[in-house]
Amino acid sequence: MSDFRKQALDYHALPTPGKISIELTKPAETSKDLALAYSPGVAEPVRAIAENPQEVYRYTAKGNMVAVISNGTAILGLGNLGPMASKPVMEGKALLFKRFAGLDSIDIEVTHRTTQDFINTVANIADSFGGVNLEDIKAPECFEIEEALIERCDVPIFHDDQHGTAIVTAAGLLNALEIQGKELRKAQIVCLGAGAAAIACMELLIKCGAQREHIYMLDSKGVIHTRREDLNQYKALFANNTDKRSLEDVISEADVFVGVSGPNLLSPEALKLMADKPIIFACSNPDPEIKPELAHKVRDDLIMATGRSDYPNQVNNVLCFPFIFRGALDVRARAINDEMKIAAVEAIRQLAKEPVPDSVLKAAGVEKLEFGVDYIIPKPIDPRLKTRVSRAVAEAAVASGASRIDLPKNYMVE
Amino acid sequence: MSDFRKQALDYHALPTPGKISIELTKPAETSKDLALAYSPGVAEPVRAIAENPQEVYRYTAKGNMVAVISNGTAILGLGNLGPMASKPVMEGKALLFKRFAGLDSIDIEVTHRTTQDFINTVANIADSFGGVNLEDIKAPECFEIEEALIERCDVPIFHDDQHGTAIVTAAGLLNALEIQGKELRKAQIVCLGAGAAAIACMELLIKCGAQREHIYMLDSKGVIHTRREDLNQYKALFANNTDKRSLEDVISEADVFVGVSGPNLLSPEALKLMADKPIIFACSNPDPEIKPELAHKVRDDLIMATGRSDYPNQVNNVLCFPFIFRGALDVRARAINDEMKIAAVEAIRQLAKEPVPDSVLKAAGVEKLEFGVDYIIPKPIDPRLKTRVSRAVAEAAVASGASRIDLPKNYMVE
Repeated sequence: MSDFRKQALDYHALPTPGKISIELTKPAETSKDLALAYSPGVAEPVRAIAENPQEVYRYTAKGNMVAVISNGTAILGLGNLGPMASKPVMEGKALLFKRFAGLDSIDIEVTHRTTQDFINTVANIADSFGGVNLEDIKAPECFEIEEALIERCDVPIFHDDQHGTAIVTAAGLLNALEIQGKELRKAQIVCLGAGAAAIACMELLIKCGAQREHIYMLDSKGVIHTRREDLNQYKALFANNTDKRSLEDVISEADVFVGVSGPNLLSPEALKLMADKPIIFACSNPDPEIKPELAHKVRDDLIMATGRSDYPNQVNNVLCFPFIFRGALDVRARAINDEMKIAAVEAIRQLAKEPVPDSVLKAAGVEKLEFGVDYIIPKPIDPRLKTRVSRAVAEAAVASGASRIDLPKNYMVE
Repeated sequence: MSDFRKQALDYHALPTPGKISIELTKPAETSKDLALAYSPGVAEPVRAIAENPQEVYRYTAKGNMVAVISNGTAILGLGNLGPMASKPVMEGKALLFKRFAGLDSIDIEVTHRTTQDFINTVANIADSFGGVNLEDIKAPECFEIEEALIERCDVPIFHDDQHGTAIVTAAGLLNALEIQGKELRKAQIVCLGAGAAAIACMELLIKCGAQREHIYMLDSKGVIHTRREDLNQYKALFANNTDKRSLEDVISEADVFVGVSGPNLLSPEALKLMADKPIIFACSNPDPEIKPELAHKVRDDLIMATGRSDYPNQVNNVLCFPFIFRGALDVRARAINDEMKIAAVEAIRQLAKEPVPDSVLKAAGVEKLEFGVDYIIPKPIDPRLKTRVSRAVAEAAVASGASRIDLPKNYMVE
């Protein structure tokens, strides 16, 4: 067994199994404590909530609690291994929610027969939580599931593999375009991959100003075009009326390449064909669509991002999901809408342009981080993400009418 | 607002809403920590579980995690106030699981249309947990729900309002019969109430040796008899072929009265009609079927138990449910079967016969507790409950084939 493998297994197994526990936030020692916590005292908040349902936020842990829910159909890059095998990932996500945003989070793995069965199950339990983070659910079912749950539920439903990825990608890409002196509105974009993340990324870029007809999307069968008859409704929205069929056909003169596909699928030859000052987001993990060393060898005018922490410009969902939920829950949002997502994009984008505190430099193990080709998005360890992104999201929730309450006083003041 | 009411509301609201939080059991500070907890390290336990599903107990928190699940249709004595209003009670139950047995427990409140919809929802999420405690679900639906879930799920399903109550009642009643020199097999029993707790109590007493034909059960319409046409299938099992119709008709010469009904429903006159050395379990809460002071005034040969902590012999589910789950989860039980329930009865019963440590006397605020009319069941604060009941349940699970593993070494040695 490799050292890292053993360390990872031991980390999960020792000294106790798993990564999370439930703890009590109130005293529970004396008979008096218990008389308040349970019968007869507990009848008082029960009555208060029965009279006014919003009081559930005052008297229970709901408002700080996120459910991380999966069916295990698309676990990391490992595929459909079922609900139980997804449990360590879902607990890991709960760990990240706590670590980065102080949110309480519990994982729930759902067994189901049909997509409708999954939707119904999650809808029936959603109200127990302040919000629901969907995770590792395969496409295209994930689109239908999220849509239906948003329709049925009165708490935020957010499929992080789609929107978390899209928000961080959009933030980085907008900054990269700015540095390269390009406009999103005019950018020619190639998206290699047509799964949950790819489609969400492109949809969000369009909401940020990209032109749908400037986007070429490719799945495993090549370019998505109007004469294909094997497209689901989500891919079909990206069908171009074109004779181009391969990556080589569409990459020529492209400004932006977004890869959410697999290792080494962008060849140096293809990269050479791109427009001046190209932008490469090679997000396949752990092996990107093209290795940064190789890409830089072929072109000296590019900006490159990957999913890896050992290269500059890591596209990491943890820049977004803890804080989009933090902001949403802090104003008791009913949903996470486009305004809130775009506010998160802008807040992340903006933070990369600010001077980086020494503590972050030290934690990142670098001497300098300055807005530019090697620093287009903040580092995950930047503590300002919590205040900035949460506040931007909460403000957008209030402004767009998605919140149930106003911004708390002095909310997320640094 | 009364003082106690304000205290109870403040306890729930301040300094943070609710009573539970999620905490991390593993380090999550450094990049190295996070690489083990999430991507890429988390792929290792995922693969291990995909290869061998039992490894989920080794690498995740499942084995120590109990879901407390309700639909809010029978909240305490308050009735059907819906899922959200039940949340403080369910969090309270989670608090008790942690406080008494060290079990992690999360509450889930289920919205649903039909009973089948509720069953399906719980069945779909049950595998996320080591076991499921059903709570505050109204009769008769609770019977159908529990039956169906036991059939469908591979983890223990336990409706505490039924079986927790039944186990503690049976333990106390068997001891009371012993003290009064009576045999359960011959005892004439009157059960006032025909809801979840009543039916479960009587069914468990029958499994312990009571004769079904010696039991008279009464609902709000009086004695349950064979000529009634308004009985659900669960009540129908207790229909006697008799001309007796009222409590007064059946209480004459009865040895045991079990009340799970409402306040002051057992009159002093009725009590006078009972056999010598009667046993009264007046469990309606907070106001029993007959006040102990009044009962003792009428009869000096009785043994009396209530649901209240301010009288001797409190029938309190907390004597059982934390430990029946503790024992079940510690041997990864697939279910909580009759053998395990009866083992819990015997362990609770036995503990009441042992000398009580000074620490328990002190915590209970009494000078002496000695097996007898005023001490037929242990006090909830007795720390030996955890070791004795958990061990008895775990041993019974192993012996009856309900467990997935053997008893851990030195399990619950005091």
